[in-house]
Amino acid sequence: MVHNFNAGPSILPHTVFEEASQAILNFNNTGLSILEIGHRTALFEEVLNEAVSLVKELMHLDENKEVLFLHGGASTQFFQLPMNYLSKDKKAAYLDAGVWGSKAIKEAKRFGQVDVVASSKDKNYTYIPKDYAVPHEAAYFHYTTNNTIEGTQMQSIPSLSMPLVADMSSDILSREMDFNRFSFIYAGAQKNIGAAGVNLVVIDKKFLDKSSSAIPSMMDYKQHVANGSMLNTPPVFAIYVCLLTLRWLKKSGGVAAIEKVNLQKSNLLYNTLEAIPLFQLPVAKEDRSHMNAVFTMNNEALEQKFLQQCKDAQMIGIKGHRSVGGFRVSMYNALPLSSVEVLVELVKDFAKQHG
Amino acid sequence: MVHNFNAGPSILPHTVFEEASQAILNFNNTGLSILEIGHRTALFEEVLNEAVSLVKELMHLDENKEVLFLHGGASTQFFQLPMNYLSKDKKAAYLDAGVWGSKAIKEAKRFGQVDVVASSKDKNYTYIPKDYAVPHEAAYFHYTTNNTIEGTQMQSIPSLSMPLVADMSSDILSREMDFNRFSFIYAGAQKNIGAAGVNLVVIDKKFLDKSSSAIPSMMDYKQHVANGSMLNTPPVFAIYVCLLTLRWLKKSGGVAAIEKVNLQKSNLLYNTLEAIPLFQLPVAKEDRSHMNAVFTMNNEALEQKFLQQCKDAQMIGIKGHRSVGGFRVSMYNALPLSSVEVLVELVKDFAKQHG
Repeated sequence: MVHNFNAGPSILPHTVFEEASQAILNFNNTGLSILEIGHRTALFEEVLNEAVSLVKELMHLDENKEVLFLHGGASTQFFQLPMNYLSKDKKAAYLDAGVWGSKAIKEAKRFGQVDVVASSKDKNYTYIPKDYAVPHEAAYFHYTTNNTIEGTQMQSIPSLSMPLVADMSSDILSREMDFNRFSFIYAGAQKNIGAAGVNLVVIDKKFLDKSSSAIPSMMDYKQHVANGSMLNTPPVFAIYVCLLTLRWLKKSGGVAAIEKVNLQKSNLLYNTLEAIPLFQLPVAKEDRSHMNAVFTMNNEALEQKFLQQCKDAQMIGIKGHRSVGGFRVSMYNALPLSSVEVLVELVKDFAKQHG
Repeated sequence: MVHNFNAGPSILPHTVFEEASQAILNFNNTGLSILEIGHRTALFEEVLNEAVSLVKELMHLDENKEVLFLHGGASTQFFQLPMNYLSKDKKAAYLDAGVWGSKAIKEAKRFGQVDVVASSKDKNYTYIPKDYAVPHEAAYFHYTTNNTIEGTQMQSIPSLSMPLVADMSSDILSREMDFNRFSFIYAGAQKNIGAAGVNLVVIDKKFLDKSSSAIPSMMDYKQHVANGSMLNTPPVFAIYVCLLTLRWLKKSGGVAAIEKVNLQKSNLLYNTLEAIPLFQLPVAKEDRSHMNAVFTMNNEALEQKFLQQCKDAQMIGIKGHRSVGGFRVSMYNALPLSSVEVLVELVKDFAKQHG
């Protein structure tokens, strides 16, 4: 059995693979493949409607929220969002706490003024900046809830008066949060929601009202909402995989239940690593991510040996991002606790051999 | 057995469904699902590289062409293209021969001057305009090779001096063409290339040089080329389905061989319909599409009856687009001749009963 610690695209529940595989041969006993059904049919409308309903239910969204499934990944939202909300005389506030957030900042600057309220770049993004002032005139405040590459996570929602916007690509639906406090949430699907090739967007109706209409149709949130994510042919199969994953999450007890398992997994790993001097944890303790654990050994020969042992034990996706080095273990919703237990045993054995 | 005449998403080869279904359970005997493999792995690089190579081979592209698989559908290209090539002082020429072309025109007008050189809107797009002058200073000339909704098709490539740009969404790889005459080709995958959720783009290097860099990264063709379609996480599974479909096409003898079958299918259907006064063919004969045949009966009660008989005989996707009415029969590459034969028998029987 392979233990998949990939940072994304990443492991999905096994039942999702089985159901998706079956739907490609014969979707809902129609004799048709999910890949060949028309998007403007009752068959697909049911898929989309149920996926939207499950997002609303699992996130406990109030009636002011619209849910969209859009083409592209979070990188598309990096520019689509400011294209809708910024102009030369408008300002947005951004927190610079990781590689992805800094890319969002770069794209926003093309459209308007950007106030970077704080940055942890000075320490290679190993912590989340905490004390900063946000200009009250900002059209929105943007941050990344979980930094996939650096292994940091915001543990609480900032108390601010302006609209909150969050890139939740790598921790959405992994922990309980008051999602209704956000005016705009986006997330590439390929971690906790489904497979690569679709974006989840949750937008508050009041914030939607303020979006621009003097932009290309495919960039216009109002048009997507008016057309129920069907402004053009949607990524049918990618949305179907989201539906299957959302159903699995509901059946597993929802966000509160999965959060407990996620904490078990990350606590087990961090506690093990903390107790072994051979391994270093570069991230500030209070900012550690429960989705992506980053650690190093400061010994390249040993790092290679550790990676090889992981590989021999059928563990994949352990190598750190090229910009950080070391190791990164991603523990998204679908990763079973047993995979972390197997890894932890290997970590301990390795420490005994080389500590 | 279902006969799938959907306009898109549409039928794909049965072997593609079987192989895609299997890859979701166990991709290339890795023990991993195609949905959970990392995009920056040798596993996916091989998929992408082979897909690009097959596009080049099947389209007989010269070494000056770059092949991209991008997020979104053709509607994304409607604005991405002019965003790259137009500005207030630059002009592009467009042919207005159908609903999709007119949408492309609308999006282009946001970025620069648009010269609509001819339009067949006066006759509900039932023909392709033929005599028109294109301003020599145009940055490009844009047209739609096949009009999915109206059932018209351009039978030859215009002889023009400026860069040619074509939306080939609904007839790419269905017939032999000198694809090297185009500076830019785009096509949503969900007809002849694969499933919904990815766009094929073929771009000439000289034309690429003229694209803008003062635009969002995700819109910048140069960045996509420099990153080999991996500027962000690509739609992994959608690209894999393209690969399987391209492999099938090669195995089937390539474009020349499939063109012969496509002509057999469309000739059989058009010849049958022409011989029956009950049915009308609104499209100018010389402009008829070999992919999408549009026909009517001018009798709503009979139309409903015909649709019901098709449905009873397990034929789906026959109903015309809501903007045209009547019937539309899509006969993409993967639709077997036998499905058209079954339909033709039903058409003849129906005419006997009601003619």
